[in-house]
Amino acid sequence: MRVFSVLLILALQLRAQTPGHPLDGLTTAEYWTVYDTLYQAGHATPETMFASVLLRPPAKAAVLGWKHGQPVPRAADVILLRGNKSFSALIDIAGKKVVRFEQLEGKQAPFLTSELYGADEFIKKDQRVIDAFKKRGIADLRTIQCVALPVAYRAIPEQATQRIGFGSCSQMRGVYHGWGRAIEGLVIHTDMVSKTVLKVIDTEVAPIPTGDINYEEIAENPRPHTTPISTSQPMGPAYRINNGEISWQNWLFRFRLDPRVGVVLNLVRFVDKGRPRSILYEGSVSELFVPYMDPAPGWNNRAFIDAGQFFASAGFLKPMRAGLDCPANATWFDGLTATETGAPKLSSNMACLFERNPENAAWRHSEGGEIFGRPTRQLVLRSAAAIGNYDYILDWRFDPDGTIEVAAGATGVIETKATAQKSADGAGNHSDSQTGQFVAEHTIGVNHDHYFSYRLDFDIEGVDNSFMLHRMVAQRIENDPMRKSIWVSKPFLAHREKDAILDIQFDKPSMWMFMNPAVKGPLNHPVAYEVMPGATAKSLMSADDPTQKIGAFSGHQFWVTPYDADQRYASGTYPTSSSANDGLAVWTQANRPIVNTDIVGWYTMGFHHIPRSEDWPVMPTMWHNFLIRPFHFFSSNPVLDLPKNLSVRP
Amino acid sequence: MRVFSVLLILALQLRAQTPGHPLDGLTTAEYWTVYDTLYQAGHATPETMFASVLLRPPAKAAVLGWKHGQPVPRAADVILLRGNKSFSALIDIAGKKVVRFEQLEGKQAPFLTSELYGADEFIKKDQRVIDAFKKRGIADLRTIQCVALPVAYRAIPEQATQRIGFGSCSQMRGVYHGWGRAIEGLVIHTDMVSKTVLKVIDTEVAPIPTGDINYEEIAENPRPHTTPISTSQPMGPAYRINNGEISWQNWLFRFRLDPRVGVVLNLVRFVDKGRPRSILYEGSVSELFVPYMDPAPGWNNRAFIDAGQFFASAGFLKPMRAGLDCPANATWFDGLTATETGAPKLSSNMACLFERNPENAAWRHSEGGEIFGRPTRQLVLRSAAAIGNYDYILDWRFDPDGTIEVAAGATGVIETKATAQKSADGAGNHSDSQTGQFVAEHTIGVNHDHYFSYRLDFDIEGVDNSFMLHRMVAQRIENDPMRKSIWVSKPFLAHREKDAILDIQFDKPSMWMFMNPAVKGPLNHPVAYEVMPGATAKSLMSADDPTQKIGAFSGHQFWVTPYDADQRYASGTYPTSSSANDGLAVWTQANRPIVNTDIVGWYTMGFHHIPRSEDWPVMPTMWHNFLIRPFHFFSSNPVLDLPKNLSVRP
Repeated sequence: MRVFSVLLILALQLRAQTPGHPLDGLTTAEYWTVYDTLYQAGHATPETMFASVLLRPPAKAAVLGWKHGQPVPRAADVILLRGNKSFSALIDIAGKKVVRFEQLEGKQAPFLTSELYGADEFIKKDQRVIDAFKKRGIADLRTIQCVALPVAYRAIPEQATQRIGFGSCSQMRGVYHGWGRAIEGLVIHTDMVSKTVLKVIDTEVAPIPTGDINYEEIAENPRPHTTPISTSQPMGPAYRINNGEISWQNWLFRFRLDPRVGVVLNLVRFVDKGRPRSILYEGSVSELFVPYMDPAPGWNNRAFIDAGQFFASAGFLKPMRAGLDCPANATWFDGLTATETGAPKLSSNMACLFERNPENAAWRHSEGGEIFGRPTRQLVLRSAAAIGNYDYILDWRFDPDGTIEVAAGATGVIETKATAQKSADGAGNHSDSQTGQFVAEHTIGVNHDHYFSYRLDFDIEGVDNSFMLHRMVAQRIENDPMRKSIWVSKPFLAHREKDAILDIQFDKPSMWMFMNPAVKGPLNHPVAYEVMPGATAKSLMSADDPTQKIGAFSGHQFWVTPYDADQRYASGTYPTSSSANDGLAVWTQANRPIVNTDIVGWYTMGFHHIPRSEDWPVMPTMWHNFLIRPFHFFSSNPVLDLPKNLSVRP
Repeated sequence: MRVFSVLLILALQLRAQTPGHPLDGLTTAEYWTVYDTLYQAGHATPETMFASVLLRPPAKAAVLGWKHGQPVPRAADVILLRGNKSFSALIDIAGKKVVRFEQLEGKQAPFLTSELYGADEFIKKDQRVIDAFKKRGIADLRTIQCVALPVAYRAIPEQATQRIGFGSCSQMRGVYHGWGRAIEGLVIHTDMVSKTVLKVIDTEVAPIPTGDINYEEIAENPRPHTTPISTSQPMGPAYRINNGEISWQNWLFRFRLDPRVGVVLNLVRFVDKGRPRSILYEGSVSELFVPYMDPAPGWNNRAFIDAGQFFASAGFLKPMRAGLDCPANATWFDGLTATETGAPKLSSNMACLFERNPENAAWRHSEGGEIFGRPTRQLVLRSAAAIGNYDYILDWRFDPDGTIEVAAGATGVIETKATAQKSADGAGNHSDSQTGQFVAEHTIGVNHDHYFSYRLDFDIEGVDNSFMLHRMVAQRIENDPMRKSIWVSKPFLAHREKDAILDIQFDKPSMWMFMNPAVKGPLNHPVAYEVMPGATAKSLMSADDPTQKIGAFSGHQFWVTPYDADQRYASGTYPTSSSANDGLAVWTQANRPIVNTDIVGWYTMGFHHIPRSEDWPVMPTMWHNFLIRPFHFFSSNPVLDLPKNLSVRP
């Protein structure tokens, strides 16, 4: 009996230890192996903080060659923080070995949540800060909440050797959150390790706004004239989940929840005439960049690398809420992250999967008074990131026709600046007119941008792909009374990285395609997938701006790089007090060849945001999207076979 | 009893005669009044064809001053065709009077359906055509279908005095529709009035493709792994329709179905704290432009003004199909158009209205591990246009937060060119590589563009509005280690039309707003609505191209004009064999003032289309959209009051 129990425990441990697939997220047992291995090697001590523990995916060849039941090669990339020293480690999990351990030179671990919020205590003890509060009539410090934020780019010399925070405080009296209650004109430079205030910049006293910021707890008087509406799936959803692989209609894919970038799609394939055909090896958010456009002290430092600067401790994704973020027919997924001590934390509702009915036709045609077509539906894989004030809803939406719609919704609370002026003058102007808009009394919504970098590792029917543009070029037609001009399509094969740094220009349009030159369709076209932009934006800041240097991916709409396992993050691996010597703009300087090799696409989705009163006290969701869609990948329309009626079982 | 009957009949006639609102579509009785009035005045004869009978909306002031129960001023704009003479008439319906009747000089009525298809008979009798068929081995002419299409721009001199058609033929043998079965290299210039062939251009013989084009009647083998999905509204939809006014949540609007441009929204208002506030006086499609990009004979004439050239006889909109175009919870609307004889025709399922559940949050925020927010829903007003091969699904989608999403889905059958080559060569190239792509054997999908012009008559809280740009301009920051640059927002009031001819440039972004300078919100901002582009495109053709001249609206993304009742169609009222002396590009040459007056915005939504094999034999729906959204129109987020649960009755 005892022997049996031990065996059972061993078997259970083994099962928990062994993920079902090389690309599955780290398991609880694996987090603990990483923990034990680092302690046993003497690299972790009780003073050591774990800033990041991430699966390091195996080499692509190993994954593609892997067969179910074979041992799974597993490794973790770890970032540790001890005092003001940051360390990087690579752990072989199966071997329980430290493969590499090194102190980071000129690079820093991301700020921990305990650092961000722990600054409250020492900031409020500093006499200069207390004086600044006094000047503003604030004596009760228990209602004041201070935080210290990192700055991505190394702008002041102290950042090179110290962990420097930029502190600010909010008045929490009378409210349940502090957004919109900032104490303006007060910036506190802090040393996060010595827990001291280095410098207090006190520029101007503005009254703390007192308007209503409570987005909840408004009178329970819901809008009239609404009746129940819901999606009905009496037989349940149509997708299957088998050993972590999701199948839906003809789609096949996997995903894991990465603490740094969230949902990582893998091995996205489409079953065509019984054969799974590869489209994406991997797809995920790579980075976010949110620069504010006010040069005032306390605002000039706000240019956030939202994933890479803030994923530590809590992770990039945050739980979602049933009935709000995902409907009743959703399947929920939990997620593991490492806490600051290195222990794993399991969080619920970190992603969800559901079918939705967009009430649209996949195709239709009206001919001779008769209408034919097929209604469509979508499979949505959703997660939500919340970074301080902003919330991002992050969707991968699969269409039956082989298209993936990638969408991000921005919501949450905008960042506001307190101002002495109550509202705009009679002409609608105010002292901050150029840098923001009044959204409430004494409250300026500050202009800013949002940029999302999506990393898209296409493997179109194989690892070696090429990137091709179809440029649409105006052409003159001579001696034809009917026409003087057309545009023609000029294919252009991008040979090197610099050929594929792309901007959208309406008078020089182009189509962007990842193709496999070695695999032809029945009409002799190389099989391909197109990246089709939606509404987007590019950064207007100068390339020599320190902020722009770290968010340089925002300067262009598209980039293509050769696959490199260490190049995953568009603003680099360590975007905290960084000298910006990593990331897309740096890598692509090498101008590496990208023809018929393993290549990765990077799409920048962005928008400029001039706030409006409607964005206060919480912002209606603003969606942006782009499409990944087949181009000569299928031999014909792949959705002729959809059922004619969504409501019956075919 | 007899007296009573007569009174009843009179009363019924009166009711049918009198629409409920000045902006309602023409009633059956009104169509007959137009008919009778024109006959009685001697302007219509049995030989006269009715090309267009459209409501001419009353003056805006009359509509805005109108009260329910008051007599309704009603008039109709009529285009008649007799022989090769076209006439324009204005009919006072209540007065049963012809207000204006004139022969059109240098302008033509649109082609009638009977002209387009009636050409079949005389084309196939022409010996040159018969010889051309013979050359191609075609003897059985009963399986050949020929049509003659108008050309929008006056390119050949005969168009000035004759009704010139450009005929082409398809082989219908073995199929149930002729798209993809064109007899290539054969263009037949026709005189539609004398019903004669003027000229036969026979350039090359290409085999007629024989591949499978049947999008229906494929094996009944629906895609596996689907389960029923539907939208459930157990208490019914939440909108009300009252005397033609639709109310939904806080929205109020009307619409009519116009035979030329389809759905015309009117009097769009949002009830804010009990008060209906005006947003749009009117909104509709104004025109479509679809130029093809192949200069070959038979293709150089294909540049279609899809509404203005082809709405006659059948109307721009076509019926939709339940369960495909609109879901089970939709309300359907019928539509009246005038047939070629002037008699009205009632068609079913011409528009539908339904609530849909996008499964998204109207807003959400995650704070301290708690998530708050509100799920949203949409009200969709949908119609579908089908112009020959192409189908357009045309949506006005109302969001609870005051946003209108305007969306168009393009589907249907692409236009293809037959070619002797079977497929691309080993390198994926072919003789038509620059102008199209193989989509099937011997079948080239020809490159083309789609442009939609939307006419948006904003009346933001009143008739007199201004158009303002917020330009985002890069600004250098000196002597700040944190930042070297920001962008600032520079408001720019468009004084005249040429100030408001706008192109999207990513390095010179701007925000476009219609505002009422006389009405301020609580923060002293003028109340405003923004037009926010989605993905779109502009024409690459030269301004001197005859085709581009008639589709000139496609050369820019946005235009603003002062309101003019006669300026409704972006390519002019008579875009058939036209000298292009009407339309947006012509009107705006006057550079009229547009400050604080009644102004109209014109948005161009477009895309370039390089066809792919997936677009054959019928094209998966490609959606484009843009937003009309409040900007300082509400004093704060207008959707804090949404119910928390979509599935219960609040």
